[in-house]
Amino acid sequence: MAKCLVTFLPENISVEAEQGTSIKQIANSIGIALKSTCGEEGTCGRCAVKVKGGKVINLGGNLSSRLRKTGHVLACRTLVEEDVVVEIPKESRLDEHQVLVEETPEKGVLAEKELDLLSGYEFDPICRTVYLELSPPTITENASDFTRLTAELRKHLDCQHVRMPLPILRTLAETLRGADWKVSVSVVRFRDTAHVVNIQPGDTTALSYGLAVDVGTTTVVAYLVNLHTGEVVGKAGTYNKQAIYGDDVISRIIYANEPNGLERLHEAVIGTVNELVDKLCTEHQVDRTNINVAVTAGNTTMAHLFLGLPPKYIRLDPYIPTAADLPPATAKELGLSINPEAWVFSFPAVASYVGGDIVSGILCTRVSQSDQMTLFIDIGTNGEMVLGNRDFMMTCACSAGPAFEGGG
Amino acid sequence: MAKCLVTFLPENISVEAEQGTSIKQIANSIGIALKSTCGEEGTCGRCAVKVKGGKVINLGGNLSSRLRKTGHVLACRTLVEEDVVVEIPKESRLDEHQVLVEETPEKGVLAEKELDLLSGYEFDPICRTVYLELSPPTITENASDFTRLTAELRKHLDCQHVRMPLPILRTLAETLRGADWKVSVSVVRFRDTAHVVNIQPGDTTALSYGLAVDVGTTTVVAYLVNLHTGEVVGKAGTYNKQAIYGDDVISRIIYANEPNGLERLHEAVIGTVNELVDKLCTEHQVDRTNINVAVTAGNTTMAHLFLGLPPKYIRLDPYIPTAADLPPATAKELGLSINPEAWVFSFPAVASYVGGDIVSGILCTRVSQSDQMTLFIDIGTNGEMVLGNRDFMMTCACSAGPAFEGGG
Repeated sequence: MAKCLVTFLPENISVEAEQGTSIKQIANSIGIALKSTCGEEGTCGRCAVKVKGGKVINLGGNLSSRLRKTGHVLACRTLVEEDVVVEIPKESRLDEHQVLVEETPEKGVLAEKELDLLSGYEFDPICRTVYLELSPPTITENASDFTRLTAELRKHLDCQHVRMPLPILRTLAETLRGADWKVSVSVVRFRDTAHVVNIQPGDTTALSYGLAVDVGTTTVVAYLVNLHTGEVVGKAGTYNKQAIYGDDVISRIIYANEPNGLERLHEAVIGTVNELVDKLCTEHQVDRTNINVAVTAGNTTMAHLFLGLPPKYIRLDPYIPTAADLPPATAKELGLSINPEAWVFSFPAVASYVGGDIVSGILCTRVSQSDQMTLFIDIGTNGEMVLGNRDFMMTCACSAGPAFEGGG
Repeated sequence: MAKCLVTFLPENISVEAEQGTSIKQIANSIGIALKSTCGEEGTCGRCAVKVKGGKVINLGGNLSSRLRKTGHVLACRTLVEEDVVVEIPKESRLDEHQVLVEETPEKGVLAEKELDLLSGYEFDPICRTVYLELSPPTITENASDFTRLTAELRKHLDCQHVRMPLPILRTLAETLRGADWKVSVSVVRFRDTAHVVNIQPGDTTALSYGLAVDVGTTTVVAYLVNLHTGEVVGKAGTYNKQAIYGDDVISRIIYANEPNGLERLHEAVIGTVNELVDKLCTEHQVDRTNINVAVTAGNTTMAHLFLGLPPKYIRLDPYIPTAADLPPATAKELGLSINPEAWVFSFPAVASYVGGDIVSGILCTRVSQSDQMTLFIDIGTNGEMVLGNRDFMMTCACSAGPAFEGGG
């Protein structure tokens, strides 16, 4: 297949691509993200670009006559035939959105609210780090390393069982002896078992971190939390890299059915979170392998894609997710660039269109514990409402983004 | 580095090797296994070979004057300098050992004993396969696939929780729909949780298998068990491929300290079990991915190497294993070529030199439940004894192999 040189304006970036490739795919390949709602079906009309020179094949599609008259084409339906120059208007770019990361003002309503939301909860992190000073083994007191460690751990933690993954067990003997039997052990408690996720020499209890991630359809926001103090040490937000494959959940579900579509969407959202981890760890000088647990919340489709579960039947009658009560996974299973043995929890969903983001919101605002009737509203690319009190709760959802964006 | 052509007799197999490589390493590389007790230190004198032509560098070592006079050298201490011809005597070959796989005669003492040993135990396999016919979801009865499956599963199994690993959850939606909601689910019960390890379309309850493995220092024996009937459908034994790195536990522990030594020993024993799995599955026409659980027993060092745990401190005063209560692992973590999600259990050890093989023997013979005083003896490369009854048990161990082999 012949190669074509494609130049994008106003960046003036050039890239070689195979003849017959769509302009949208070429733009994606070098990180220029174009809007799309239709999963590259040529129906949403959002990826309009202008070909300034060179020959292309225009397969048509849904584009307003105004844009057609001004020489625009759909990037997803236009294939390059030879060297071409393409101008990408501001309106077609994904990064013209604005990511909202809540700021905590010194005074004011938001700050008060935030205090209200958190004050009622005790600080009891799902991952605890305990500093242990073990007595070295002798010829008469010769329990195994694992038994020695867990016996001491049980004095500090209330748990019936202790499990340790093989990679940590494989280094246990040298870690204990290298640290002169003084180590910090991080455990994630799940049901009646303490799962060891990290063992480090010396007292590193103050250096254990957790990550809370809001996985939105359009934006992803991560909070880095010190698990010793409970302090939120940093926040960062960015676009969900999945957006290049469609900008609402339905177009993502459609794209997930394409060959390798699910893998690409999974890698895109994991890549997005990893970018935020990079940023937070650099800014706050935190070793990424000290992030020992992560908790994520998102709508049901986002939660499926985050775990690599196929969202196909969320869209088809009778609208069934693979799982609503989502299982914990390890960071290494998902490809998250934190401690590979860290546990990653997903907030449970209610149904296909009421996800873990709403459940976490209800938990946080305590609608379900209040006598007062409350209306809880989440306005995002998808919008959800919950009405209720301690006696009952009703919920519904719809696609809200287009109402604000004037499209859809 | 110059290449030398090394020819082994009487096989008359030739192989290219780098100048300066030891004859033992070259023989190992093409699967000719030589005896060794010393971890290639030149002290055990077991790998004697005869150089029939070509120049070598003989670094000396411990070899009887009788063998020296007849032109023998130690393969581990002799480096090739140019093209050479090497004769390997029968006495130096590992495969001159005989692997003992118990046969079940039609009549006689062994058969009676075998019945005695098994008859007292109920058939209650750790992995059960249950056939489920689920009702398809509707718009009003729209629970998630996972909830639908587990609700039905709980009707058949007594367990508090159900967990499903991500790879199985990722295919659940298509498996259920492709099977018209009729599936067989294999679960391993561990503590209060049923862990799903396999889901197959239709009723495959009769096709679920377990593997029991005796991981010996010299030989490895595997039993393939039908988990539906409890029948032992096949047995197979072979040499532990680790033997090329030393033929008792001490020389293996020494070798494990070499660079990549532990990885090689781990891969060698896993490779040995995989060879037996191949043989059993071919002979009995069993799909290897239907082996849903494995149970292994071995001395403490073998159990460590099987899991990839460093055995170093088993040998050093005060003789401490990494773990005696060994954790279950998955087949994919270990590289076993059965169902990748299968759980692999290791019998717990008592101490560094009394392993899970002895524990399984005591369980099976019920020494610990009897009023009678019993002496339990395991004669292997390592020998162990247990004396006791329901009130007490004492145990000791020593290196027994050399007593029978006239060496050590």
